Amino acid sequence: MEKVTLTVEGMSCGHCVKAVESSVGGLNGVSSVKVDLENKKVDIEFNQEAVTLEAIKETIDDQGYDVK
Amino acid sequence: MEKVTLTVEGMSCGHCVKAVESSVGGLNGVSSVKVDLENKKVDIEFNQEAVTLEAIKETIDDQGYDVK
Repeated sequence: MEKVTLTVEGMSCGHCVKAVESSVGGLNGVSSVKVDLENKKVDIEFNQEAVTLEAIKETIDDQGYDVK
Repeated sequence: MEKVTLTVEGMSCGHCVKAVESSVGGLNGVSSVKVDLENKKVDIEFNQEAVTLEAIKETIDDQGYDVK
């Protein structure tokens, strides 16, 4: 299991938190995702044999946010 | 048909716009609702024989926003 903390720009409200958490959390191989709205951080635990970090970043990007 | 423009605090992103527009727009008697995010304004057209302004304000409040 890998742990990563991404910096994500553009999240502004509870809907944004839900959009990121549900989309990333819905990926096969992601076991946990937690958004810290104030600090623009997203903590993710994932199984790198099941999902790539690149795919996770793309999923966040697809929701309209900017992964730094 | 009545037209009203409400000032609503707390809307910060497209999800918020959608939450307000779909909840208010879903009320019986509301024929149009348009959010101006930048100026914190919500333009609403409604039939006051079918829905009260008070009910519209409550609907926005229930979505977590502050009607001034």
